[in-house]
This record gives sequence, structure tokens and C-alpha cells, in this order.
Amino acid sequence: MTNRTNTVGIIGLGLIGGSMAIDLKKRGFAQTVLGVEAEPVNAAAAEKIGLVDRVASLEECISLSDIIILAIPVGGAVKLLPQVLDMFSSLGEKGSDKIVIDVCSTKENLTRTVRYHPLRRQYVATHPMAGTEYSGPWAAMPGLYDGHACIICDSEESAPKAVRKIEELYDTLNMRTIYMNSSNHDVHTAYVSHISHVTSFALALTVLDKEKDEKHIFDLASGGFSSTVRLAKSSPDMWIPILSQNRDNVLRVMDTYIEKMKAFRDAVDESDEDKLRELMTEANKIRRIIR
Amino acid sequence: MTNRTNTVGIIGLGLIGGSMAIDLKKRGFAQTVLGVEAEPVNAAAAEKIGLVDRVASLEECISLSDIIILAIPVGGAVKLLPQVLDMFSSLGEKGSDKIVIDVCSTKENLTRTVRYHPLRRQYVATHPMAGTEYSGPWAAMPGLYDGHACIICDSEESAPKAVRKIEELYDTLNMRTIYMNSSNHDVHTAYVSHISHVTSFALALTVLDKEKDEKHIFDLASGGFSSTVRLAKSSPDMWIPILSQNRDNVLRVMDTYIEKMKAFRDAVDESDEDKLRELMTEANKIRRIIR
Repeated sequence: MTNRTNTVGIIGLGLIGGSMAIDLKKRGFAQTVLGVEAEPVNAAAAEKIGLVDRVASLEECISLSDIIILAIPVGGAVKLLPQVLDMFSSLGEKGSDKIVIDVCSTKENLTRTVRYHPLRRQYVATHPMAGTEYSGPWAAMPGLYDGHACIICDSEESAPKAVRKIEELYDTLNMRTIYMNSSNHDVHTAYVSHISHVTSFALALTVLDKEKDEKHIFDLASGGFSSTVRLAKSSPDMWIPILSQNRDNVLRVMDTYIEKMKAFRDAVDESDEDKLRELMTEANKIRRIIR
Repeated sequence: MTNRTNTVGIIGLGLIGGSMAIDLKKRGFAQTVLGVEAEPVNAAAAEKIGLVDRVASLEECISLSDIIILAIPVGGAVKLLPQVLDMFSSLGEKGSDKIVIDVCSTKENLTRTVRYHPLRRQYVATHPMAGTEYSGPWAAMPGLYDGHACIICDSEESAPKAVRKIEELYDTLNMRTIYMNSSNHDVHTAYVSHISHVTSFALALTVLDKEKDEKHIFDLASGGFSSTVRLAKSSPDMWIPILSQNRDNVLRVMDTYIEKMKAFRDAVDESDEDKLRELMTEANKIRRIIR
């Protein structure tokens, strides 16, 4: 049930926004895709690659689009989201059917900033859980979202009509939608996404430290190492705001994680093979869950 | 330059030994592959799948094989390796051309056990750096070793003729050979392999802990989490001896790693975005190395 008349405005033409642009256009959800991109090099690249029909100013994009997607790091989105709702307001009748969504990895702070905004119901908080460790318009790719989960937060705070439209958008991207409140979202993502990035960053730092003395250490890097350290290539521009915004949850998970690492460390230190077996056998239960 | 007359005896028909059996036979290096497997269920499976021509007793395998591959966890290999050399000895002239190799992930302890054995030169210490997180004969697969690195340790301690034969074996498996001493091997693998397994185990434990309260947390697990936690499925039977045998190196790496994690933790705790940027930007240098 796609609607060829949608004009979609995407603010931020990186991996996330750019990949949405490709599939929303190609699969017929969007008649026109407008892009807003603050970084001139990225804007030029996005136009050259053809991610969007046209790069526009923020004002023009909001004036012309039916659906606005905030696809910028969460630190910027916290500032921009209320402004977009204000701009809807100032457009009067013309602004009253527009919808804005964000696609950020943390939600509690963001939703709090507009909780009492008179146009709150035109905002839908979403988190499509897909990505790669690459960034920028060059990293955008078709099919990025296919088969992954998308969380819609606090949907009762949004107008039912707006939620339905955004469900249709994610249906076009072949995502399965999950519903929860912002607070649970931030706890869960700390566990199944944010901590993985920190462990990869720390692993990279550990090994790079050693590499200063041992030039050839990476000749040996095998598949297991590569997959464990892959996320350490992730962009600080994206991840600093995520860790900041989700500070309390992330801290709690990091503390648990450091405890578990220390349990391993002490078992190795004490050559306690029974303890190592207990820890590994427990960890093996992840097989139930991750194929 | 494969030699159809090689009889290869593989002790331990799991992922590692079984995958070698498949390709050494299929690619013509081995005329006959004999297998030794202590676990009756695995032995029956290996014969049924056809990994080896025949399952044999240890004595028969050593008596009939030109090349013996110890493909059991390193704890067992430490005990078995000197026994195999003793058995070569007791075979007299017939044992004088036989070669034994191990394929274990740690080397210093293992090579130490036979340093002064009169038949030391018939042993070649090797570490083919490939694997998956699965184990057992069912996990064996063709092509497992293709394109990966194989470390040959202390090659000057082995007879040149034996080293050449084993190079030919790894050439058949499409591996590139790297040479270093056992001590460097154990330092390097602690950094580029062993620590990755521990960080994955700890991550699995952290998230499984949380799952006790939150049944649906894994609905959200994305690709990044899966790749970071994948190694937590690894077998305790393999990994307990590795961490024990490589205790000192692994401890050193774990301590560095825990320090790096704490640096992240403190930066998050203090909302120190400059410090987070510094840490992440440094970690991003892994891009130079891992594609």
C-alpha cells in the first residue's frame, strides 16, 4: 500500500539516512527524496551518487516534505527535533499533517525534549537496528535494513495516523517493528549494542598498544579477531553522543562487564580450571540465542 | 608436488583434525587418512561422515602413518607428544622417517616438553590459524584453512626434510606459512586471538545475566552484537587448556584490556567527551589493519 505521493526529507545523508533514501525511493514509498546535509563534501557526494533527488536547505526541506527523517547523531537530533516541530507549527495548516521521525540509537533524552511540545503527536520515535561500521554517504547501501528489527518507542504519544504511516515506511524497508517505551529501549540497547562497541574499541586499543613494539603482530590476525574488533572502526561522531546520552545504562553494563572480565582474569591467574569451565559453559548459553 | 603415498594419521577428529582430513585426502596429499578418536560418539560420526578412511587405535595409527597430526586440545597434546616420539623410537628403523606435528594454539609449554627428546627433530610445531566457533566432527568442513596463515615454530629444531614435508602439507591446505619462535608465537596469539575469546565470553555472560530479568532482550540483538559475541560459543575443552598454557601472556593482555575498558568507563562516567573522542579516534586506527 505504498503511496507514490510521499515526499520524504532526510536530514543527514550518511550511512543511515543515505541507505533509507535509496530504498524508500527505489521501492516506491517516496515520490521525491530531499536531503539536508551540513557537511558540503558529503552533500556534494550524496548528490553525485544520486542518493537524493536534490539537496535542499532545512527550511525548504521541511516546507516541502510530508515526512522528515532526522538521521544525524543523537547529540544534534536533541537540538533539532524541537526546532522541526516549531517549524511545523509556524507553517500553520500546511504543517499539520507533517510527520518527523528520528532514527537514533538512544531515546530517553530525545523524547524528553519534546514531551510537552504542542505538536508532540506529529513525532514518532524510531530506531531501525541496522548499520555497518562504515559511515558517510559512500557507505550508504540498498537493502541495509532488510530483515532487521525496528523499535518504535512510546507510540501512544504519537498520533495513530502518524504511527501507521511510519509503520508503512518501515514495512517498505522490510523491517519488523517492535514496540517499547524509551526507557526500556535505552536499557536494552545498552546491552545488545552499545557495550559491544565499547568492548571492540577497548580491544583495538589493547592490540594497537602492543603493535608499537611488534610490527608484525597483525600478520596473525584471524577471523575471530577481525569479527570481535570490527566495531572499533565505528565513527566517534556517532558514538560519543550515544554513550553520553545513554550514560547511566551504559555505565551499569560496563561495570557488570568489567566484573565478568575480572572473574576470568582471576580464574586464569589462579589457574582455576573449574572456574574457567563454569564461566565458559555459562557463556556458551549464548548459543540458544545467537545463531 | 603432492605425494600420493603419504599415509596421514590424525589424532582428534574434531573441527580442526576433521577439516584437515577432508582436504588432505581430497587434494591428493594423503593416499590414506587414519583417525584416532577417544570419544566413541565422535569416532562413529567421523567414520559415518567419511572424514577418514578408517578409525584406528593409537598404536596402529602411529605404526602405519608417515605423518601424525595431533589435533587435540593442548592439555592433552602436552602429554601425548612425548609418547608419540617414544613410540617412533620403539619402532626402530621403521619409525625413523615418521613426522609428528601438533596444530595447537599455544606452543611454549608444548615445545618445552620435548626439547631434549632424542627424536625432537621428527616433530614440527605448527599452528594453522583458522577455525570456527563450532566443534566436533560435525563441524569439519572443506576449505577451512584456505587463505589463512599457518605459523611454524622453532623450525630450526626440526629436521629440514620434515619441515619441507610439512610445508607441502600446508601448501596443500592453501595456507601461507609464517615462521617464529614459540615464545613470540604465544605472545602474539594472546593479542590477536586469545583475548578476543575472553572478551566474547565476558560479553555473553554480561548479557545473559540481564536476560534473566528481561526475556525479550535478544529480539534486539543486531549484527554488531552477534559478531562481537560469536566466539562465546567456543568450546571450553579447547579454551581452558589454551588459557592455562598461555597463562602469563594472557594475563598481561587481559590486564591491559581491563585498563582500556576502565578508561572508557571513567570517560563515560565523567561525561568527558574529549577523552572519549581521543580513545575512539585511536581505536579507529585498527582500520589500517583489519579490512
